[in-house]
Amino acid sequence: MNLLTVGTVAFDDIETPLGKADMAIGGAATYISLAAAHFTDRVMLVSVVGDDFPEETLNYMKKQGVDLGGLQIKEGEKSFFWAGRYHNNMNSRDTLDTQLNVLADFDPVLPPSYTEADYVMLGNLTPDVQIRVIEQLVKRPKLIALDTMNFWMDNTMSRLKEVMTMIDVLIINDEEARQLSGEYSLVKAADVIRAMGPKTLVVKKGEHGALLFQDNELFFAPALPLAEVTDPTGAGDTFAGGFMGYIAQTDDTSFENMKRAIIYGSAMASFCVEKFSIERLVGLQKEEIKERVKQFVQLVNFDAQL
Amino acid sequence: MNLLTVGTVAFDDIETPLGKADMAIGGAATYISLAAAHFTDRVMLVSVVGDDFPEETLNYMKKQGVDLGGLQIKEGEKSFFWAGRYHNNMNSRDTLDTQLNVLADFDPVLPPSYTEADYVMLGNLTPDVQIRVIEQLVKRPKLIALDTMNFWMDNTMSRLKEVMTMIDVLIINDEEARQLSGEYSLVKAADVIRAMGPKTLVVKKGEHGALLFQDNELFFAPALPLAEVTDPTGAGDTFAGGFMGYIAQTDDTSFENMKRAIIYGSAMASFCVEKFSIERLVGLQKEEIKERVKQFVQLVNFDAQL
Repeated sequence: MNLLTVGTVAFDDIETPLGKADMAIGGAATYISLAAAHFTDRVMLVSVVGDDFPEETLNYMKKQGVDLGGLQIKEGEKSFFWAGRYHNNMNSRDTLDTQLNVLADFDPVLPPSYTEADYVMLGNLTPDVQIRVIEQLVKRPKLIALDTMNFWMDNTMSRLKEVMTMIDVLIINDEEARQLSGEYSLVKAADVIRAMGPKTLVVKKGEHGALLFQDNELFFAPALPLAEVTDPTGAGDTFAGGFMGYIAQTDDTSFENMKRAIIYGSAMASFCVEKFSIERLVGLQKEEIKERVKQFVQLVNFDAQL
Repeated sequence: MNLLTVGTVAFDDIETPLGKADMAIGGAATYISLAAAHFTDRVMLVSVVGDDFPEETLNYMKKQGVDLGGLQIKEGEKSFFWAGRYHNNMNSRDTLDTQLNVLADFDPVLPPSYTEADYVMLGNLTPDVQIRVIEQLVKRPKLIALDTMNFWMDNTMSRLKEVMTMIDVLIINDEEARQLSGEYSLVKAADVIRAMGPKTLVVKKGEHGALLFQDNELFFAPALPLAEVTDPTGAGDTFAGGFMGYIAQTDDTSFENMKRAIIYGSAMASFCVEKFSIERLVGLQKEEIKERVKQFVQLVNFDAQL
């Protein structure tokens, strides 16, 4: 099955304790697409770039099965740009610069073939854009997942609440879950958030793994403990892309399959952080992903002998 | 098999966002003993209290199978006392008061029957006392585990390094592992720490679970996500007591069995935090523990379909 995604395709300046990358390829939809393309044949990308975005990267995405029919390329304009510096613990970062550029007046337009998408992953963007994508769909997708962030909670909460009634899965981090719900306990937060719309909630906890809440079910996927994290940028988007890509590939929205999807998402994220930008996702082999998932099985597998 | 433990038996004043407990029963060895006693028939306690410590609690411990032959009761003296206040996230706390009292000149004396202990859990105390306990053993136990904290790293590092060469399992939290090794990555920290002596390292991450490192093996046990944490005091000691109690009961020091032991330790800790002090450990039933372990299986169990 196919997967439609919307989000940024952008440049990042990144500083981490292990190095620096200038004008590196970034953007939520870039990571989502490249991760999902390892699973599903057709990823339909909705985004906007300036004419400064490298054709080489776009060609690579096409080669991976990413349909760029929904990518607007604005002549004479610049792509979205973000600069950030990670702290020593790699869990927190400072934003040094944000230049909206083409994103400032981005109006997503879905090509006709996109409007019957099977699965949808709405990457972190203003809720207005996320809603405009949903409004263009002529058929209810089998599953709509959404990522968002504290910025939209602070500034456009009513629109965020609106889009939350239209989706099935919300994918956010622990801080965002606490802010959105007003509850410190993630168990309590999950109840509050699911009452806002999404039946399923995924809470990303970075190096501490991820939680999946649905009805009275709860599943926890660890993050793989790594000797070295080079660059955490895009790890959350790569996680979401792996998660939704796996679900689209298997065409199975059951809780049991979502558990597997979370593990695949975690595996993809564990690759993402090994190198700067999208470097580790490029050329990643199916066999490597399988081996990584085996490591996750090893990591948590035990025989309780009950 | 039996388990020897040494550590504090004490009073705590505790403040958490959910309430207050004054002169509550506390102490590392109290939690370790009560947790371990749910698994193994005989827990041999080495500690010291003043004549202010309630006989009712001591009688309860005896009833649970805790041998108090190694507990010194100092007439006219006061028990060790600690007062602390937890922050809103329950992950950090301030120490408000510490009164060593009987602990100031504690010289552990093992009754003859203790000196052939099968398993040993050295609770958090000055490395001098931990070493003096080991020195009195006439037979090498099957497994010696040790807990310590940053205070001993700051003040008695050379003695701590000495005791680390005498043990098999070190059980510390993530911050302590980072301080002890000088490495931020827990994977790297584990290598550095195991080169100091212990073949096995358990890193407790509080609400984020625990990691078990041995040779090239790595296991992760989650903490149970809870709607409410009433009082985290003693959770780490309860975890260690459950871990070593389970190993003593099964008399099996294999890595596969240590995985189960970590899950049992995590289950015991998840009970501990539900009420103040030792309240939840008192009267806890075997069936409740079994049900809790089933929840851990549910939490991480998935079929990778590889």
